[in-house]
Parts: sequence; structure tokens; C-alpha cells
Amino acid sequence: MNLLEYINQHRDEHLHELFQLLRIPSVSAKSEHKPDIQRAAQWIADKLTAIGMDGVEIIPTKLHPLVYAEWLRAPGKPTILFYGHYDVQPPEPLELWTSPPFEPTVRKGRLYARGSADDKGQVHIHLAALASLMNVYGQLPINVKLIIEGEEEVGSENIYKFVRENKRKLKADALLVSDTSMVAGGVPSITYALRGLNYYEIEISGAEQDLHSGVFGGVAPNPLQVLADLFARLHDKDGRVAVPGFYRDVQTLSKVEHRALHALPWSEKDLRRFVGSPGLNGEKGYTTLERLWCRPTLELNGMWGGYMGEGAKTVIPAKAWAKFSTRLVPNQDPKKIAAMVEKQVRRLLPKTVKCKFQTLSQGKPWVATYDSPIFQTAIRALTEGFGRKAVFIREGGSIPFVTEVHDELRVPCVLMGFGLPDENAHAPDEHISLDHYYGGIRSVARFYEDLAALKPGEVASKKRS
Amino acid sequence: MNLLEYINQHRDEHLHELFQLLRIPSVSAKSEHKPDIQRAAQWIADKLTAIGMDGVEIIPTKLHPLVYAEWLRAPGKPTILFYGHYDVQPPEPLELWTSPPFEPTVRKGRLYARGSADDKGQVHIHLAALASLMNVYGQLPINVKLIIEGEEEVGSENIYKFVRENKRKLKADALLVSDTSMVAGGVPSITYALRGLNYYEIEISGAEQDLHSGVFGGVAPNPLQVLADLFARLHDKDGRVAVPGFYRDVQTLSKVEHRALHALPWSEKDLRRFVGSPGLNGEKGYTTLERLWCRPTLELNGMWGGYMGEGAKTVIPAKAWAKFSTRLVPNQDPKKIAAMVEKQVRRLLPKTVKCKFQTLSQGKPWVATYDSPIFQTAIRALTEGFGRKAVFIREGGSIPFVTEVHDELRVPCVLMGFGLPDENAHAPDEHISLDHYYGGIRSVARFYEDLAALKPGEVASKKRS
Repeated sequence: MNLLEYINQHRDEHLHELFQLLRIPSVSAKSEHKPDIQRAAQWIADKLTAIGMDGVEIIPTKLHPLVYAEWLRAPGKPTILFYGHYDVQPPEPLELWTSPPFEPTVRKGRLYARGSADDKGQVHIHLAALASLMNVYGQLPINVKLIIEGEEEVGSENIYKFVRENKRKLKADALLVSDTSMVAGGVPSITYALRGLNYYEIEISGAEQDLHSGVFGGVAPNPLQVLADLFARLHDKDGRVAVPGFYRDVQTLSKVEHRALHALPWSEKDLRRFVGSPGLNGEKGYTTLERLWCRPTLELNGMWGGYMGEGAKTVIPAKAWAKFSTRLVPNQDPKKIAAMVEKQVRRLLPKTVKCKFQTLSQGKPWVATYDSPIFQTAIRALTEGFGRKAVFIREGGSIPFVTEVHDELRVPCVLMGFGLPDENAHAPDEHISLDHYYGGIRSVARFYEDLAALKPGEVASKKRS
Repeated sequence: MNLLEYINQHRDEHLHELFQLLRIPSVSAKSEHKPDIQRAAQWIADKLTAIGMDGVEIIPTKLHPLVYAEWLRAPGKPTILFYGHYDVQPPEPLELWTSPPFEPTVRKGRLYARGSADDKGQVHIHLAALASLMNVYGQLPINVKLIIEGEEEVGSENIYKFVRENKRKLKADALLVSDTSMVAGGVPSITYALRGLNYYEIEISGAEQDLHSGVFGGVAPNPLQVLADLFARLHDKDGRVAVPGFYRDVQTLSKVEHRALHALPWSEKDLRRFVGSPGLNGEKGYTTLERLWCRPTLELNGMWGGYMGEGAKTVIPAKAWAKFSTRLVPNQDPKKIAAMVEKQVRRLLPKTVKCKFQTLSQGKPWVATYDSPIFQTAIRALTEGFGRKAVFIREGGSIPFVTEVHDELRVPCVLMGFGLPDENAHAPDEHISLDHYYGGIRSVARFYEDLAALKPGEVASKKRS
């Protein structure tokens, strides 16, 4: 049977299988979900075994386990290392979901569930493609290693360690990742640049306990006011991050790249409609697309303290907290940035309070040259799988693992993503387009098949990608 | 039997009774506590009936009921209107209480429970004094009306309406309130000025839903950042409230009053030790005591939005919230201030977000001249009850009812308080000194007794207090 015919005939079977994976609430940020994380890892491992992969392992780490599998029975053919993650973002606020986050539901050609786009749905595209290849040909046409982690949403710390200590085990001719988006519905896309991510948390302490705002107001330091003053001063009036040195190493866009980016079938109007706020904002002197993909940011992700209940409570809280993050662009060094940010935060804080500063995670930005043969193979496979010309794009999000592996293994990284920016990856009603899911399976299967035509030495370009 | 002897012999009985009242979690801010509010009102009414008061009523309002009772069988004697409240602040955060908030516990001469100082403990001082007078003399020496409300911690809205519509019922020669503090342990105090309180809540809306901070960061408005920018700009660099017109009507302190305030047995060192923060702050050009008692403030009481859980979530929240309040000093008009604050907030907000602005409550500041005979009677009774010279003080807190009644009934208001500023009125481990509780019962009973020596016309001074 023809490969694409097989895939089309097994649409429902693949989807049904994905439902099983999406039903497991594998939220990596919350310790109460540790058993679910374990179940999700087991589900993936069982599936890989069922497909017929070799060396399936659940590898424990200090936090959440990695799942590994391989197929190395294609001598003389290229070896691909596939990376994905089976953990998901917390689903809260639950009341904003149309259907429950862990009960996959199809509405109008979209599959709704936490993890449907980020990243279980995309991981499953590869599982379904591998299963299809195996069922049609009785073997895989190339060598494949898979490493699927459970900590992507909380910093990927343990997989870095694993990669550094297992370079031989993971050796491959290229890295393949599906955890990114397409530039627009139906337009298959390869992402060649990602922003890096540092995530921070600070705790501001004033008085030793909550105080009555009448009795002590006007005298006791207010940690909420301190946070407001601090974050107001971390941006200047032009929307630039006001941390000395923050922009020092930022790579500027070449004219060619600038032109290419602004020629993409990308619609600012669609973005505005999706965001739905009365207006957009950002750093002065840059277009919206540059702000999204090519400029670093500092963003508050959470802030809290004092009375948050119904009605009024006249309190000056003893403590207040903020979670915030910096997105980094090529050439910025997360370690240097974390030190700069902490230094500036401490410099801006008044002497009336104490501050606990934590950098919860660090991740490098990444950019690839995309002239190696594997990218041409990928573009062809995507164009065939979707019936529409595939394009090269950048992305504002972060996949710390990509940079880490790129640095350690020094191979090209192909980011072939099947999500869309408006699919609520980290918000209620996360979903994936079923057309993209099925198009993904077709493209990925074709990609694995077509790679067999390359010799291992031909995969990467002469230039280091 | 002598009155003071009776009181001393019934110490344990009175305390045991107070425990019953403190065990009722009458939190007015939370609708789930409505039945507890009802139980507390009933408890007070039953107690007043048991004491032998006439006309005991539980008066329903749109929110929480008022309790009223009277004793009008002392013709030719002055009539006192006593005001107190049986509602309490929310007890959260629960984990910071040494013993549970609604299980009264005595440790080292202090009674710990939510409401012990603010204001159930102080209300009970009057109930115990009245019961003692009634048991010793078989009647009360003067005419007494009591009105005890259940909404003080949420704005007192319904009692205002009741006062306006029932001026005749509430007519009295003076108002008596015990909901304030003493200037220092063992130093009985009469408060002659209070700050007013306006309480506000704002909701900032940006995108229509939470967004991924990588995919949309740098472009989508961040309501948390908007709150930070807003509140940073609501104070200037000298710690002054940056709302045009805010200080316009503020009364300045006379030299005489300035000298009197700074001669009080009040210790900044004790305040610093109690607050426990690395430093204090406040408006430039004023002493700590002036900042606490005589200057208006704008204070954040709560702020929240985005991810507040364990670990990291890279989200730009769709909405963020803040609760804040302004403390007002004599001559500032809450209505004008609320309008100024809203206008300035809206002026400072960027066009990229929407804002819902609510003034949850308004309350006027209050100041009294204290040369009427009733104040001399009160100072003598307090001096006798505590065995130490009583003093006149101001207070930074607010009792909106005092101003409202003062405006409506135009009688002197005697604020005889038995708390201390460091008794955590709105925080975990709220407590009251048992010495102050017992001293309070002695002083109040003596005060009621001594007032019988005044003719109704003599109670108030010629000057309007």
C-alpha cells in the first residue's frame, strides 16, 4: 500500500490514540501531577515499543523522566534525532475553557485540549508517521533516535545534563523538532530562529507581618508599591528594557533577512484581531513582526500580594511576589543577562525592603543558516504534505533544548512545526487544527522517507548551521 | 457591692462570654459567612436582652443586620449613643496564625482571635460594663442607646442610610465609640481625629485571553505591566500622592497641636521594631507621627494577575487587578477625592487596555475639638480605670460611621479605645491585652456612672465639637 494512502486510511485511529495521550494531565510545574507525568512517559514508551522501536527506555532524572527509543537498522542512511516534550502548561484558569482541558474535544475542525498544540499533538504526529512507515514498509528508511522530555515547560534542566553526558548515545546527523508554529493557516513553515528564555521570581518583604493600612499607612513600606515602582522602571518610555547592557550583544537583522521576513504571508490585522486588545504596544523603532521575532523583551508573567478576595481589606501586605521573564535574541547570553537583570533589580529597590531573587531557568536564543540539503528535503516534504509552498520563518517562543543540543552536538536543527500562534498554547482552549495534524503526519512520513536519498555526510551544509 | 469590686469578681465570667462571640467567624467581606454574621447579630441581641436592655432589635439591611437596644429610664440624665461593630476582617492568610483565628486563646496576658481588638473585644467591654452596672444598681445611671453594625469592615454603607432615616430614634447628647487604640501599653487614650477612607478596585483588560509570552511578548499589552506603570506614577519621588488636587483641602497642623502630638509617650523605636522592615518610608517633610496620623496616603492593598502558582508559566495575562485605598485627613472630601483619583487613573492608563474602575466605599475624615465637659469626664474615668493619666491622640485609621453620625446628629463623639497599633487588627494573630480589656470595663462602667452628674445640656461644649 502507498504510504500516503495508508496515512489517510488511519486518520481516525491516529486521532483516537492522540486522545489517550491528551487525557493524561502531565503538568510539569505542579508536584501534585508527578504521577500523571509518570503515566504520560509510560504511555509514550509503550507506544514506541508497539511501533517496533528498539531500546525503549524511561530514564529517570532529578525531576521528570525522559523517554528514549531508537531505530538503527538502516546502515549507510542518515541518523535523525527527534526531540519533543510530553509535559504541558498548567491549565488554569479552568473556568475559561469551553470544554475541560484534559477531555479532548473536536469542534469545527479543531482539536481542543491542553497539550494538543504544545506539544503532545506534535509529538504524536511523529509517532503516527513512524508507525505508518513501519506498517507500510516493515522497517524505517533511515536511522532514528527519539528523546522526549517532561520538563520543557519548567526549564528543561535535566535533559541538558543528559545530553552533555550522553553525546555518543544521541549522536545524529540532524536534530528534528516539532514544537513551533506555522506562519498562517495552511502555510507549512520551518522555523530558523527562536528567542531564548530566562525566567525569574522575586519576593519582596517589608514588615514582618501584614499591617493595617490605616494604622501604618504612610510609614510602612508597601511591597506591592515597591513591585510597581520596580517594574515601571525596568522599561523606559520608548518600551525598551531598562537594564544596562541588555541590548549590547543583540544581533541586528540584515537587509536581506528584513526583506524576506516582511514578504511572508503574515497578517498584522489577524494578529490584532486575535489579541483583541484596544491596541498593541512595544519597542519604538521596530515593526510588529520584528518585535515578535527579533527583539528581546522583559515581561511580567505573574504578580501578587495583599488581599485578592471579595470586597475590601485595608492591609499593607508583608510580602509581595512577581514572576517575570526575558526573551532573548541571537547573541544574547542568558547567564550574562540573568546577572544584569538581578543587578538592576537590586539597584532599583529601596533600602526599606528585602528581596529574594531567583532565576528559575535560563535558555539561549538560536538561529540557523538554512542552506544545508536537509532543509531542502524538509521544504519539499512539507510542500507535498500540505499542497502549498513551505516557507522559512522565525518565532518569538523558546525551545531551550534546541540551542543546547545545537551547541553540544553541532548538527543542523530542523524545526518543523504544526501549531498556529493563535492556538492558545499557554492559555485556555488550547487547540490544534486537524488539517495541520493530518498534514503533519503526511509531511513527516514523507520527510523520513525522502531523507533516505541523502548520504549521512550530505545532511549538513559545509557552513555550520 | 462596689462597682469596681463587682467587675473584678466577674473577670472570668466576662472573658468566657467574650470567647463565645469571638468564636463566630462573622467576616463581612465574604458572602459565604452570611449565616455567621446573622449568628453574631443574634448573639449580641440575646446578650442585650439578658442584660435587661429595652427595645432590642435586629434590623435587617440590604447587606448585614444592625443590632439596636436602649435604656431610656433615666429622666433628666444625659443620653449616650454607643456605636460598635460585630463584623471582622477576613482571617487570611490562615497559615500565619499561631492559634486558629476563631478559637480564642490566651498567651502571656493577651487574648488572640480575629476580632479580639477590632472590634468585638471592645464592644464586649461595653456589654460587660452595662451588665455590671445593671447587676450592681438594678438600673443604668444614664440613658443609653446602642447601635452595633455588621458592615464596618466593608464600608458601613447601610448604617449611614439607617442613621439618616432614624435621626429621632438615635438622638443623643453624645456618641461613644470604642474601636480605636491607646498610644502605648497602659496609657489610656481618647482619639480626637481619624483619617477617612476611600477604597477602590480596578480591573485592567488587555488581550481577550491569556497569551503565550514568547509568541506575543513585545507586542501584546501586559495588564500587569500597566498596573506597575500606573501605581509607580501615582506617587512622586518625594512620596507624595501624584493626583492633581489631592492635597488642596488638607488642613495643616497648628503649632500647639504639633507640640502636643510630639510630646506624647509615643516611641518611634517601638514602631520600627514592630514593623520590622529594614526601613520606614513616607512623604518628605513630615515626621513619622505626622505621616501616620495627619497626612493623607494612597496605598495598594492587593494586586494580582497572571500565574501565581509553583514553577514557571510563560503567560501574558488577559486581565490584572488592584485594590487600593486613600486615607483622608480633615477637610478632604471623599467624593471629590474619588473623582480626582478615577480621573488621574484614567488619564495615566495607555490606550492599549480597558479599565473598570470602582469606588467600593467612601468615608470622611474627622477631627473634634475636645473642650466639652464630656471629654473631661471621660479622661477622669479612664485615668481611674487604668491608674494612669489619660491622653488625647489622633489615629491613622478610619471609622466612617463617626463622621457620618457627627454630621447627621451634631453631637460630640468620644472615641475611647482599648486596642494597640501592634495588635494586628487586620493581620494574623490579632490580639488584645487582657489588662486593657479589664481596664476598659472598669473605665467604661465608671464613665457611664460619672456621666450621671452632668445635665444633658452640659454634655457638649458651646463650640461644636
